[in-house]
Amino acid sequence: MWDHLWTDATIATMEPGDAAFGLVEHGALASEDGRIAWIGPAGAIPAPARTTTDCGGKLLTPGLVDPHTHIVHAGARRTDWELRLAGATRDDLTRLNGGIRGTMLTTRAASDAELFQQSAARISVLIANGVTTLESKSGYGLDLDTELRLLRTSRELGRRMPVDIVCTFMGAHAVPPEFEGDPDAYIDHLVDAVLPAAIAEDLVDLVDGYCDTPKFRGFTHAQMDRMFDAAARHGKRVTLHADQYSEAAASELAGRHHALSAAHLEYATEQGVQALAAAGAVALLLPGAHYTLFETRKPPVALFRQHGVPMALATNNNPSSSPCLMPTMIMSLATTLFRLTAEEAVAGFTRESARALDLLHDRGTLAPGKRADLVLWDLPHPAELPYRIAHSPVCAVIRGGETIHAAAAPNLLSEAR
Amino acid sequence: MWDHLWTDATIATMEPGDAAFGLVEHGALASEDGRIAWIGPAGAIPAPARTTTDCGGKLLTPGLVDPHTHIVHAGARRTDWELRLAGATRDDLTRLNGGIRGTMLTTRAASDAELFQQSAARISVLIANGVTTLESKSGYGLDLDTELRLLRTSRELGRRMPVDIVCTFMGAHAVPPEFEGDPDAYIDHLVDAVLPAAIAEDLVDLVDGYCDTPKFRGFTHAQMDRMFDAAARHGKRVTLHADQYSEAAASELAGRHHALSAAHLEYATEQGVQALAAAGAVALLLPGAHYTLFETRKPPVALFRQHGVPMALATNNNPSSSPCLMPTMIMSLATTLFRLTAEEAVAGFTRESARALDLLHDRGTLAPGKRADLVLWDLPHPAELPYRIAHSPVCAVIRGGETIHAAAAPNLLSEAR
Repeated sequence: MWDHLWTDATIATMEPGDAAFGLVEHGALASEDGRIAWIGPAGAIPAPARTTTDCGGKLLTPGLVDPHTHIVHAGARRTDWELRLAGATRDDLTRLNGGIRGTMLTTRAASDAELFQQSAARISVLIANGVTTLESKSGYGLDLDTELRLLRTSRELGRRMPVDIVCTFMGAHAVPPEFEGDPDAYIDHLVDAVLPAAIAEDLVDLVDGYCDTPKFRGFTHAQMDRMFDAAARHGKRVTLHADQYSEAAASELAGRHHALSAAHLEYATEQGVQALAAAGAVALLLPGAHYTLFETRKPPVALFRQHGVPMALATNNNPSSSPCLMPTMIMSLATTLFRLTAEEAVAGFTRESARALDLLHDRGTLAPGKRADLVLWDLPHPAELPYRIAHSPVCAVIRGGETIHAAAAPNLLSEAR
Repeated sequence: MWDHLWTDATIATMEPGDAAFGLVEHGALASEDGRIAWIGPAGAIPAPARTTTDCGGKLLTPGLVDPHTHIVHAGARRTDWELRLAGATRDDLTRLNGGIRGTMLTTRAASDAELFQQSAARISVLIANGVTTLESKSGYGLDLDTELRLLRTSRELGRRMPVDIVCTFMGAHAVPPEFEGDPDAYIDHLVDAVLPAAIAEDLVDLVDGYCDTPKFRGFTHAQMDRMFDAAARHGKRVTLHADQYSEAAASELAGRHHALSAAHLEYATEQGVQALAAAGAVALLLPGAHYTLFETRKPPVALFRQHGVPMALATNNNPSSSPCLMPTMIMSLATTLFRLTAEEAVAGFTRESARALDLLHDRGTLAPGKRADLVLWDLPHPAELPYRIAHSPVCAVIRGGETIHAAAAPNLLSEAR
């Protein structure tokens, strides 16, 4: 007997195939031991279940996977945003101790408890918006002690919250003041001291970095080669902040290191896209930062399609360029700003984001054997997830077959009045 | 003795003056008989209250006023959005029975109960996002019977939901199939039959219309003159969908008729802005439609500032060009797309939107004597309302001193379970 059955649902399995969104209308889904046991028509359920949810035609999707966040940090960067609105450049912000530097200062100054509490509050919102797996980067510490604190916080959040957290070491996010003007020495420090210490505590699942041209103070190819070679020696896969501000051939670098994904990619060239395709890497598009930074150059979506590079989406939650915790809004931005189709946008937060974290074998689509990570939405069709603007009508979030969040839709109608 | 006291709040009164946002830090606000009795420092409260809320430093703003919505309708227009993403024009949509025509068909076909239920569900979300007063237009009926049904539904929603609804007659939204090719005869019908019937039932607070050039099938100046002259004969103020798609001198038309506001305004010229200024009209900016329609021309924000035309914002909730129910997201779009300042964006949904509905004497800012319409937000500062993307952390919505909605912030930490 199955543990649970969700019946009369509009199921977007997101499995590739003939049906858009892998749609099963009037469908049912059974779970057993936290895994999906069966999916099929609600009229032909072959076995009983201990408990049943009648979904009343509502939409059931895979639990969302947010594959790129800087969610563990302290403080907000409202002033960055106000300065940018008034015309400040990225260099202006750095001079004013804004951007990454600003968050580094507030993060270093925060206690472990503050860091945990502020990050947990944000993750609670992500879960309430449908996320069952997320990635969390270090990179606002930029020193041994704080980078380790950030990674430990990510691990602890994954233990204490009903969500899976993939922990990414991103010491190579920016050059800290202690190494100002000497990025090579900073990379040495990361490779020789910080990464090994983090690995020794089992705090690292992936390794990330920021590569761009000197004008945008990115790490160079040679520096990232050293960082990623170190990751490989520890047996860790990599991802890269690539080609966000200028043509830095960072996609090619990501390809060379068999990165799971490369993120941003506004300035990726066809050669870069081919390198990602050859490596089987995912293009991780971050329209929240594109929107906030008034970027006009779009990532080469047509080239990704042409070369068969899968496209994932992420909130990229961070206090300066993407203070966002709503995946459906990111889907809206991806369709409106980058012209992704509705199906690409939903796949970007399910199938392709699971692929970007090397978890597609276990989740990201709805299929027998995969973990029963589900979101029930008060919507009739998956295309409504990106169609509506800033609307995230989650009824329930299920992880491993268990309801981890249930929301009451607001109903302020008064029969009595 | 006061009825209620909110203390230790960061109060954004939005009253004009020296302090940005009319900010009172560590402030307190007292209500009596549904009105604001006193605002001042939390350390110097001059009188006791029957009940007290300690706001713990959180942000208190005026209840939001959403001054332009098409919220009473049936059905969704997801296909319009998908067609537009694929390159369809406004004319393509009309040919395919999309846009206003499509919603007219689903709305005419809906029962009174369906219309009421679907609209009530949307208004519940608006209230949960901080709205205490909204405007609701007819204009998806386009025949006598359905236009009256829409206006009656708006009135009924205002009676049965804890929100004030300003009812606007917008028969001149588009030419219905029954009058295809003969807009003059349709205006005659509106002036002679529909508006008088609506007035007779006391269903009309304001009169709206759509003026644009023939290419965009707007009503002409002469047609809108007749419509608005009829409104004036019935003693009703007007507002206008103006200069959205092309330079139609519709702002000048709005000015001539002493409109309370003119909406959209992407193509308003300096002459149009001067006409609005001379009439004391509010520029009602609708960035949701701008975003959805891939519009590139921006409303002339610098000219509005230069000529002293106040700027209001609205969700413009409608199923085709602005399926949005979150004022804070509209604030974000207004800052990012139109470069409004944070303070202008917040004023746009409080002081200036109340002004656009001729309600500023009674609400829209926090001052003694005004109605105690308040929103308590889990934010430290009013600039965070537009700074965060698709984030609407409402703790409580208060109308006339009474809590009409209270939200529990999600907290999914395991110790809390």
